[in-house]
Amino acid sequence: MAETETNEDEAFGITDRLVSEVLDAVGRGDGAYLSQVLDPMHPADVAHLLEQVDTRDRRALLITWPGGLEGEILSELDEELRQEVIEQLAPAELADAVRDLESDDVVDLVEYLDDAQQEAVLDALDATDRIVVEQALTYPEESAGRHMQSELVRAPDHWTVGEAIDYLRSDVVLPEQFYHIILVDPRLKATGYVTLGRILSHPRDTLLRDITEDTFRTFHVAQDVEEVAQAINHYHMITAPVVDDDDRIVGVITIDDAMMFLEEEAEEDILRLAGVGEGSLSDRVIATTKRRFPWLAVNLVTAIFASLVISMFEETIAGLVALAVLMPIVASMGGNAGTQSLTVAVRALATRDLTTANVWRVIKREVLVGLINGLIFAVVMAIVGVVWFGSPMLGVVIAVAMVINMVVAGLAGTVIPVVLEKIGVDPALASGAFVTTVTDVVGFFAFLGLAAIWLL
Amino acid sequence: MAETETNEDEAFGITDRLVSEVLDAVGRGDGAYLSQVLDPMHPADVAHLLEQVDTRDRRALLITWPGGLEGEILSELDEELRQEVIEQLAPAELADAVRDLESDDVVDLVEYLDDAQQEAVLDALDATDRIVVEQALTYPEESAGRHMQSELVRAPDHWTVGEAIDYLRSDVVLPEQFYHIILVDPRLKATGYVTLGRILSHPRDTLLRDITEDTFRTFHVAQDVEEVAQAINHYHMITAPVVDDDDRIVGVITIDDAMMFLEEEAEEDILRLAGVGEGSLSDRVIATTKRRFPWLAVNLVTAIFASLVISMFEETIAGLVALAVLMPIVASMGGNAGTQSLTVAVRALATRDLTTANVWRVIKREVLVGLINGLIFAVVMAIVGVVWFGSPMLGVVIAVAMVINMVVAGLAGTVIPVVLEKIGVDPALASGAFVTTVTDVVGFFAFLGLAAIWLL
Repeated sequence: MAETETNEDEAFGITDRLVSEVLDAVGRGDGAYLSQVLDPMHPADVAHLLEQVDTRDRRALLITWPGGLEGEILSELDEELRQEVIEQLAPAELADAVRDLESDDVVDLVEYLDDAQQEAVLDALDATDRIVVEQALTYPEESAGRHMQSELVRAPDHWTVGEAIDYLRSDVVLPEQFYHIILVDPRLKATGYVTLGRILSHPRDTLLRDITEDTFRTFHVAQDVEEVAQAINHYHMITAPVVDDDDRIVGVITIDDAMMFLEEEAEEDILRLAGVGEGSLSDRVIATTKRRFPWLAVNLVTAIFASLVISMFEETIAGLVALAVLMPIVASMGGNAGTQSLTVAVRALATRDLTTANVWRVIKREVLVGLINGLIFAVVMAIVGVVWFGSPMLGVVIAVAMVINMVVAGLAGTVIPVVLEKIGVDPALASGAFVTTVTDVVGFFAFLGLAAIWLL
Repeated sequence: MAETETNEDEAFGITDRLVSEVLDAVGRGDGAYLSQVLDPMHPADVAHLLEQVDTRDRRALLITWPGGLEGEILSELDEELRQEVIEQLAPAELADAVRDLESDDVVDLVEYLDDAQQEAVLDALDATDRIVVEQALTYPEESAGRHMQSELVRAPDHWTVGEAIDYLRSDVVLPEQFYHIILVDPRLKATGYVTLGRILSHPRDTLLRDITEDTFRTFHVAQDVEEVAQAINHYHMITAPVVDDDDRIVGVITIDDAMMFLEEEAEEDILRLAGVGEGSLSDRVIATTKRRFPWLAVNLVTAIFASLVISMFEETIAGLVALAVLMPIVASMGGNAGTQSLTVAVRALATRDLTTANVWRVIKREVLVGLINGLIFAVVMAIVGVVWFGSPMLGVVIAVAMVINMVVAGLAGTVIPVVLEKIGVDPALASGAFVTTVTDVVGFFAFLGLAAIWLL
């Protein structure tokens, strides 16, 4: 039977009913039921189930379930939760769990552990694996070296298809999953790769070097792993070979890991743009509160700044209260237009579509878009002003302020992220506060200032 | 030499200098230079270069470049640009370009063409390919059937490794890239798959059915392709087999396509949350203006709604202009807190982390986070109110209004996306306007209402 997922409530293998049945079993201490349900499940599904329940239930489940935690489930867990679960495991259990993981998954698990736990895990590995993991930990966080899988299949570049097949059929230890054989010269320098499909479809006497892929390219251990992931996506690669300073092959980044890195990157950008920072759904109240607080604090400063602008015009407002009624509209439209521009700019920077080659064109476009939309909404608001408050001059004031603010929004929404990126600040993180400050200040100042001159 | 990408301005193979050199060559009509530079380039890089220049240069480049456009470059282009470029091609050129594409890429190209162009492309295909493409076009947009690749390798499930290898070495036509052999029973029902790695590493007399992957699962042609992509990511699959109503294998979704779908999905969510809708950096001014207009119009309605609330309190404001100065702060903090909650909720819905099983827990958390942050900022604002305007009662009013609005923000920011999702409206698209309306209205109403009661 095909496994279809048409039910909206059904997240992969995990239905709401399954979650409550599992929790019932945990409640009555029914370990046999848990084994029966959880043991055959895909580790990603077990992890997903653990993410759905709260901390207390999660602890109880892990105690009641006799099967216990495989390493692969740990690897699939959200980082925050993983930390929580690992703390609950005895060092021996933890060591047991990680023994069968690929090297990159072990690195992923141990990089944020405290020294005692890290030691316990490393002790559980055999000597070769331990060296590989320790080596990976010497590379910078977020580098290709830190996240590569060292398990790979390489062959001398003078081999034939037949020699490669015989080698693979010998009792050599192969990675769980591999899709290429990487060719190396006598100095272990990577010179190309061959897909398994080509090996299988060519006669035994074909030279491997005659059937390599022409998309072959290598990445340096120190390179940012997100860049490698972007290249994997851009060039439709399945395996990205990672080389050291001497161009010797030391590992690979695989497409499934690349997919995860790109997902994380997009997710981070979304959350940063919204002022949420990192964090996941399974974080607890205090952690979430703390994480959101700084963004709100920045917003408060911004808002007070805007209020200072308003307070410069207290007399103007006292003279015509309609201004207080209408002023949030100008600021709000500018803020929205600015957010539109900055979001497009931030994403285009992240995906490398916005470059020095086209930045002026994009700025020009955003300003023009702001101008045109500004003119349209200016007309609308002028009419609203006249109809609502019966003052044509008030209509003119709000119209002119609207145009000014929306042009500024287009400009600030593009220039601010670009400048932040240039000076090395993450534009997703900081653009919002700057752009909103600009549109609030300009909006209130233009509207109230023009009103002070033209209306009173 | 390893291809490293440490220069920020260097988007994959395309440097700013390369772009200007190419444009210079276009300017002086130097087709030979263009061939020399562009012909050996990866199609994805050529597409990226075309995306960096403006419409006029792009047209000139395509006319000057003698090599002309391969189908793969068309496939790599942004949808909007692709349309523009295709319009420039004669039907014969277009037909020429698509002849060597995989079936899913052809479908991708023709699905939005007008009838004449579509006919020209279909005529260029050989009979089998044409049937495959026409069949794919009968499946709904965004379905697995529409986006699957029909080129795949299947084998009877009673075959041995040796039989499979002999079959692959025969003169059968194989897909460009393939990583699995899919096993079928006599009725063509898919029963499992074997990775090429396992085939290569097992003796010739091993039965294929004895070395299948235990993660095997199939997807129905009508299933949403984004769901298939999520499953590929979740289960770390390389190939997702697609089956028809009778469970017969009809195609595969590959991980590199899945990666693209997930990227697009995240991108869409980001742009929708920011009120930008679809659209890319290469869109022109009028297209961009039109696309952003509706979102700004919705925001205008929202803003006017908030202004109506303010206008209910004109007398209160006339009595104490400090209220006009401070009121945007309450609305702005609520708006920000609401955006934080709704972004987390929208993404959690998209990644299926927010389900019926945990929705109440999440709502409770968001309300509590709003309450705690609200209390902290209430104290800060009370002090600001007292120091700035010397009125303790004004401090109390703004503090209470702040707490109310931030609790409402946490509640609205979670409940609104969940309800929208339940009634089938894309929460990324519509949540922002609703949540901001709620926090503006509640913010102004609570602050000015309390002021009217307690201060005047």
